Amino acid sequence: MSNDSKKNQIQTSVLPGFMELIPAEQIVFDRMKDTIRSVFESFGFAPMDTPAIERAEVLVAKAGGETEKQIYEFKKGDNDLALRFDLTVPLARFVAENFRDLAFPFRRYQIGKVYRGESPQKGRYREFYQCDIDIIGNGELSLINDAEMPAVIFAVFSKLNIGKFQIRISNRKLINGLMVSLGLQDISVEVMRIIDKMDKVGKSEVSKTLLDAGVSKDSVEKVLNFTEITGDNDEVISALKNLNIKNETFEQGINELEELVSNIRKLGVREDSFVIDLTIARGLDYYTGTVYETRLVDYPKLGSICSGGRFDNLAEKFTEQKLPGVGISIGLTRLFSQLKEAGVINFGPATLSKVLVIPLSDDIAPALSIASDLRKSGIATEIYLEEAKMKSKLSYADKIKVPYVVLVGDDEIKSGKYSVKNMNTGEQVEVPIEQIKTVIK
Amino acid sequence: MSNDSKKNQIQTSVLPGFMELIPAEQIVFDRMKDTIRSVFESFGFAPMDTPAIERAEVLVAKAGGETEKQIYEFKKGDNDLALRFDLTVPLARFVAENFRDLAFPFRRYQIGKVYRGESPQKGRYREFYQCDIDIIGNGELSLINDAEMPAVIFAVFSKLNIGKFQIRISNRKLINGLMVSLGLQDISVEVMRIIDKMDKVGKSEVSKTLLDAGVSKDSVEKVLNFTEITGDNDEVISALKNLNIKNETFEQGINELEELVSNIRKLGVREDSFVIDLTIARGLDYYTGTVYETRLVDYPKLGSICSGGRFDNLAEKFTEQKLPGVGISIGLTRLFSQLKEAGVINFGPATLSKVLVIPLSDDIAPALSIASDLRKSGIATEIYLEEAKMKSKLSYADKIKVPYVVLVGDDEIKSGKYSVKNMNTGEQVEVPIEQIKTVIK
Repeated sequence: MSNDSKKNQIQTSVLPGFMELIPAEQIVFDRMKDTIRSVFESFGFAPMDTPAIERAEVLVAKAGGETEKQIYEFKKGDNDLALRFDLTVPLARFVAENFRDLAFPFRRYQIGKVYRGESPQKGRYREFYQCDIDIIGNGELSLINDAEMPAVIFAVFSKLNIGKFQIRISNRKLINGLMVSLGLQDISVEVMRIIDKMDKVGKSEVSKTLLDAGVSKDSVEKVLNFTEITGDNDEVISALKNLNIKNETFEQGINELEELVSNIRKLGVREDSFVIDLTIARGLDYYTGTVYETRLVDYPKLGSICSGGRFDNLAEKFTEQKLPGVGISIGLTRLFSQLKEAGVINFGPATLSKVLVIPLSDDIAPALSIASDLRKSGIATEIYLEEAKMKSKLSYADKIKVPYVVLVGDDEIKSGKYSVKNMNTGEQVEVPIEQIKTVIK
Repeated sequence: MSNDSKKNQIQTSVLPGFMELIPAEQIVFDRMKDTIRSVFESFGFAPMDTPAIERAEVLVAKAGGETEKQIYEFKKGDNDLALRFDLTVPLARFVAENFRDLAFPFRRYQIGKVYRGESPQKGRYREFYQCDIDIIGNGELSLINDAEMPAVIFAVFSKLNIGKFQIRISNRKLINGLMVSLGLQDISVEVMRIIDKMDKVGKSEVSKTLLDAGVSKDSVEKVLNFTEITGDNDEVISALKNLNIKNETFEQGINELEELVSNIRKLGVREDSFVIDLTIARGLDYYTGTVYETRLVDYPKLGSICSGGRFDNLAEKFTEQKLPGVGISIGLTRLFSQLKEAGVINFGPATLSKVLVIPLSDDIAPALSIASDLRKSGIATEIYLEEAKMKSKLSYADKIKVPYVVLVGDDEIKSGKYSVKNMNTGEQVEVPIEQIKTVIK
């Protein structure tokens, strides 16, 4: 049919790289998002919601490199517009714009969608949720704030209940100071690239490549000693001190890390959930001090599910004010999709209703009134309003996996006793109207 | 300074037509959004979250006219993309795509941002939140569902607590049937345009213009009798019957309206909060049966703050399935901004924290530990971590309007009794650590 082919021309699938969920999945996704939000709020972060569309110049000012190519840019009228690719640039613009109206330190969370036109591949999305918190100081920001981030991460991932996790902490000043102390600051990018291959090619190959790159034998040894430091948090700090690297930045890095560990403990974060990992400092080069990554112990392939760190100046492109800060970001869309793929998430009902009221009488008034009463006592309630056979009605209840069904037929209306069926156990009781809530609650 | 001027080149204000709020405002906005969501969920609507970016052809298929011009369209690679301009087209695409995975009637809510490149003017936004619910049937959908919409609207606006509101209901079949019965279906658009001027030009002028347009004297009288119907809900239905218009569609309109009123009552909606208003059917021509508008009684200038209706077929552009539905939409961004402008909203704290813990000792461990304890008992708690004079610390507390402050100085640590200050009353009590929560709760 010509009509058929016309209809089929419009694809109804979502675009590649975009996530869209059916209700049972969306309910779990939203529950995760709500959990993250409630923890952010419990730590006193205030909500923020910036437009998804920014002036292109605002975004391009900060992006650069790979990210700039991924920006969705377009024109509307004379305006060069773009979709935000993260929540940090909008935060910088917001703080610069509203500087006088804000109280500092400014603590905000933002949970929203960001856009990157990446080539879509497993676990990479073009539209994805970021869940960010940042604390921004006016001129200065105490180092103690850096300890709050692991406390928040600890609370979030404990509540999300998606398995054992480990917060990895380090400090950029260590690797920066080390490079300077060895006179390697000019080739530090190359040195780090070589070190990063340690897992793949082994120590002796790394050593050889470093020597070939012009690093002295003594320096190679110091670099390798640094990368090989392991142990519990106190052991790592001792080992760093024992390296005896005479460089102010390096020493500052040790002091900051030591203070961070001490403050994290004071905030009641379980010792086995955070660990110093000197390798993470290499990847997070946007940051200037403390850095964080978080991994799920049983799913190392997921990589870091929550990263962040300390930065010296948030909004230098937008304001003269010096605005140091510290923050973290959870990439929720990627986390959810990978947990789903790994089979970690159990999907339940396709409804948030606790009860489905099914009228079986021509007189629907009692059913409507029962539903209203249940809603008023805080029980999410749905009514099946279609004309259908009993079997279809119950099959709808099964399909959405609603926990309880209340049957309202002529017999029930006459006797004043209603059948409440627990759909999980199959158990069914007959109770007067005022006891329906009790059975369900 | 050249540096200065360079920085000033990037504008930090939001684009015209976009809304961005400071924390005290955002908190109220989010509370309204949460209220709407919780009511939607209490009625058994499941969450949905479609991408903001769609294939351009998906949106253009449905938009047409003024809306099509407003669509933000752009290219990325070879793809013609566009930002969604409502949540209904994405719903249609979603239902067509996931038809087999959904249980019908499919009840979903979606709260999300949509985009329209309108010329920005008072109360018009280019990015705004829509809060939608729809019930979609597979082939058929019982008329009783139409009564659920006013029940939801009633619950939403009662809980939002933004003043007296009135839900106006009508049925498109009345005006359609009237036009057909008078043989005016071909000039119905013109007739309605003329009727709409009643308030401005008066009855005799409308009558004259209708006659000029070729409407017979008898028909003019019938049209005017129809538009002049007022009274309580039962009176309006009687008056409609008394018009004696012999047209199947018109009669169906009366029957549907009568059944709607009866079912709305059974759902416990207060009689004074909904009223039949035959004039609203003229504006909502996308709909095919029941139509709704909602107004704030004390702020008539806001117009309808929640509109919707019954439609015959949701997704004819995307699927062969017949999908009748009924739904409503709240334009939250516009509602919020107009309530703000009208001075209806009282803005409170710039924080969601119940407590600000202020360490006054060099030993910050007790302060950090108190904060952790408060958070664990569900009290949102913030710690002031900066080095500053007592005055600055308290002035921060004042600025964010946090309800309570807990002071943790050396004396407090020694005595084990902590000062809890109620920032609203100024009252201050000294209590042992385990009683801090009691004072605050």
